[in-house]
Amino acid sequence: MVQYSQDRLDGSFAALSDTTRRGVLEQLGRADASITDLARTFDMTLTGMKKHVGVLERAGLVRTEKVGRVRTCTLGPRRLEEAREWMESYRQMWDARFEELDGLVQELTRKEQDDEPGE
Amino acid sequence: MVQYSQDRLDGSFAALSDTTRRGVLEQLGRADASITDLARTFDMTLTGMKKHVGVLERAGLVRTEKVGRVRTCTLGPRRLEEAREWMESYRQMWDARFEELDGLVQELTRKEQDDEPGE
Repeated sequence: MVQYSQDRLDGSFAALSDTTRRGVLEQLGRADASITDLARTFDMTLTGMKKHVGVLERAGLVRTEKVGRVRTCTLGPRRLEEAREWMESYRQMWDARFEELDGLVQELTRKEQDDEPGE
Repeated sequence: MVQYSQDRLDGSFAALSDTTRRGVLEQLGRADASITDLARTFDMTLTGMKKHVGVLERAGLVRTEKVGRVRTCTLGPRRLEEAREWMESYRQMWDARFEELDGLVQELTRKEQDDEPGE
């Protein structure tokens, strides 16, 4: 498989392994939002939401900017391209592996039939 | 975005958020292996490898079978289809969002030019 920055892949997948964080990304795909808005939408404390946004920000998936007293969140620069490629590559490998096993089973079945005494 | 089983998505992404676990999946894509083999390949204790394999097994990504004293690992039944679809859907959203913002910037630039006094 292609070589990626393993740390970055770890961070991307870890950031995505939480329902709320995926929800925040989907929300920011529709419109920018303040942390207060996000906490309200996801029925969460401000502290809890700040932690989730921090994880997303460190993974490059969210960008935040403080103007006055309000911290606004927008989608970050990363499109998860590497993580998507890893999964695509995994799928191809999976298909190839199961095709190979399938071929093996068919071959064994054929051999078994050949070995049976003729009618 | 499409609705998925959120718990299953959490589990899939968490399973993938570790370099060794992704390495184990890639390894099993090439050939089945015992836990002892995997521990050796990834220079890890047997206990450490058992934990990683347990995470992958609970996520449906690896299947293990004990024959005699050897536990053999194979790729599990799940192709990560949902996780892949989530990422595909995220990418489309990301593209749409940035196109939208790009359109907005272009419109503002055009307006600014229109507002400038003619030569």
